[in-house]
Amino acid sequence: MKKYNFNAGPSILPREVIENTAKQCLDFNGSGLSLMEISHRAKDFQPVVDEAVALIKELLQIPEGYSVLFLGGGASLEFCMVPYNFLIKKAAYLNTGTWSKKAIKEAKLFGEVVEVASSAESNFTYIPKGWSCPTDVDYLHVTTNNTIFGTEIRTDLDVPVPMIADMSSDIFSRPVDVSKYDCIYAGAQKNLAMAGVTLVIVKDEKLGRAPRQIPTMLDYRTHVEKGSMFNTPPVVPIYCALETLRWLKNNGGLEAMDKLAHERAEILYGEIDRNKLFRGTVKEEDRSLMNICFVMNDEYAELEKPFLEYAMSKGMVGIKGHRSVGGFRASCYNAQTIEGVNALVQCMKEFEASH
Amino acid sequence: MKKYNFNAGPSILPREVIENTAKQCLDFNGSGLSLMEISHRAKDFQPVVDEAVALIKELLQIPEGYSVLFLGGGASLEFCMVPYNFLIKKAAYLNTGTWSKKAIKEAKLFGEVVEVASSAESNFTYIPKGWSCPTDVDYLHVTTNNTIFGTEIRTDLDVPVPMIADMSSDIFSRPVDVSKYDCIYAGAQKNLAMAGVTLVIVKDEKLGRAPRQIPTMLDYRTHVEKGSMFNTPPVVPIYCALETLRWLKNNGGLEAMDKLAHERAEILYGEIDRNKLFRGTVKEEDRSLMNICFVMNDEYAELEKPFLEYAMSKGMVGIKGHRSVGGFRASCYNAQTIEGVNALVQCMKEFEASH
Repeated sequence: MKKYNFNAGPSILPREVIENTAKQCLDFNGSGLSLMEISHRAKDFQPVVDEAVALIKELLQIPEGYSVLFLGGGASLEFCMVPYNFLIKKAAYLNTGTWSKKAIKEAKLFGEVVEVASSAESNFTYIPKGWSCPTDVDYLHVTTNNTIFGTEIRTDLDVPVPMIADMSSDIFSRPVDVSKYDCIYAGAQKNLAMAGVTLVIVKDEKLGRAPRQIPTMLDYRTHVEKGSMFNTPPVVPIYCALETLRWLKNNGGLEAMDKLAHERAEILYGEIDRNKLFRGTVKEEDRSLMNICFVMNDEYAELEKPFLEYAMSKGMVGIKGHRSVGGFRASCYNAQTIEGVNALVQCMKEFEASH
Repeated sequence: MKKYNFNAGPSILPREVIENTAKQCLDFNGSGLSLMEISHRAKDFQPVVDEAVALIKELLQIPEGYSVLFLGGGASLEFCMVPYNFLIKKAAYLNTGTWSKKAIKEAKLFGEVVEVASSAESNFTYIPKGWSCPTDVDYLHVTTNNTIFGTEIRTDLDVPVPMIADMSSDIFSRPVDVSKYDCIYAGAQKNLAMAGVTLVIVKDEKLGRAPRQIPTMLDYRTHVEKGSMFNTPPVVPIYCALETLRWLKNNGGLEAMDKLAHERAEILYGEIDRNKLFRGTVKEEDRSLMNICFVMNDEYAELEKPFLEYAMSKGMVGIKGHRSVGGFRASCYNAQTIEGVNALVQCMKEFEASH
């Protein structure tokens, strides 16, 4: 039976990305060696990094003065690298859920943190509005998409200071005005590649200002100077990213991804709102296009497990909701197809008809 | 033409490891999903981590009281994580080359560092002997194998304090008395897996004693408590490690690897010492079994490039020496075959006969 992958991360990748990467794992560029066992200094690998960086700059239309890095350690490591490198005295953070809270915790080790707003009191079912950002902070940190709670900030905010954004789970799903950010970071395992590499975009002129000694590997300058080759980079995950970036470009780039994201979301949220069994968990205007969270309506609460089992029996994978929210979560990253979303909607309709 | 992979890292892996990993990248355990796109929380992935940890404990005969972790970021990140977690006041470091120097540099950010000995004055062509280790240090740090200079400490030293070892390039090539170490770390890309994961073995009772706040991701306790699942781990590299660990066990474990390492080294160093064109660069008793470094004898210096080209034409890959040493480096990790070593020796003999 065909499987539909709604995992929150690591998550669905385009089939051609998977097949091309697996093929190179058997024989890289006809070299007789596996992609897993080539040197990162091999003359065939530098072009992989160069092309990936060029495609990222092209897709995101990154202005001059920014560096694009591939690092190890995951976005969670960036939670401390960001303040290590950018927090001079005081930073502002918008608290929209689990990932923001983790980022705030690390920043507090390095300086004063102002929480500009939070939706914690409602279990993060909306994105706070009407707050103002202080002008005397080094940056405002935002988590653009919340995989767990299913909210998303799908615009580049207007604030009086540079932003730093964790875009782990919605990068490459829409055009971004990079000039508004001093740093954008993203774990690869949603819209970019297999797990094991983190994309970081930094504004070069803002580096080296923080008043502290930074361990070499945590200093973005180290990686800027060495073109992500200071130490052995995660070769296979970077190659996988390159394949995804080629796929992104060949499939219309970020405007096409944005359009597709809206189409998927309209179909699925439409069914959630129509179907008597289900309801969305997030304030409508803040609904994520990437992680679509829903629960059983109260009168059908006992059908949660039966629906999960029914959907799984029809090939749906990874739709169990995070324990902080419960219910269901259908992650619809770039590689998610309309066919996949329709298959899930079909399950919801059939289950409604039989109950 | 058959290629023989002598890369220093990322480096040769057993063919069955490559093929099995590539196969799972197309369809993981018959799930219909790629290993690249499964959730690390999927019920099929926890057994991968569990089996890998169990095999590491079995192969290295790790005593009770140690945790085995899979982290991102590379061994270079461990250079700062080690003092962050273990340096209370003063630490000793043995300086045997590039990697030791990098580790020392990071440790100095956290406390007093005693360099117990160094072979820097001879460009690290030997392992210093006859030094003593102070008893008032928190640990002695050693780099057991030096990929660049081709020296190796192939025994567990007798010192009056716990050791911490960077075993990136010779782990799993011999039995180790883990009880002598508070921490052992190793980037995977030599004897364990594709690049992108770092193995760390820590003595649990020694954690949490350092007098500083540690960023969450840099605190080994975070990863011990969460079984390497605090954040998304590098799923595919960890799976690749599991395949290598199975291969290690099926091929006789660490005693068999040790024997094979000696056999390969005897063949290749034997030829280097016999062949009029070449000489080794390292003091005989300190020669690495993993990275075999040699140069042209002075009177044949002009043949360096021609020999490199000749060897490459015969299928040898990655034998150019590191720029700090020049000449040649044939890396002979666990997966290197006697056939591969003999093929290189054959090149050396043929080249000698024709010059």
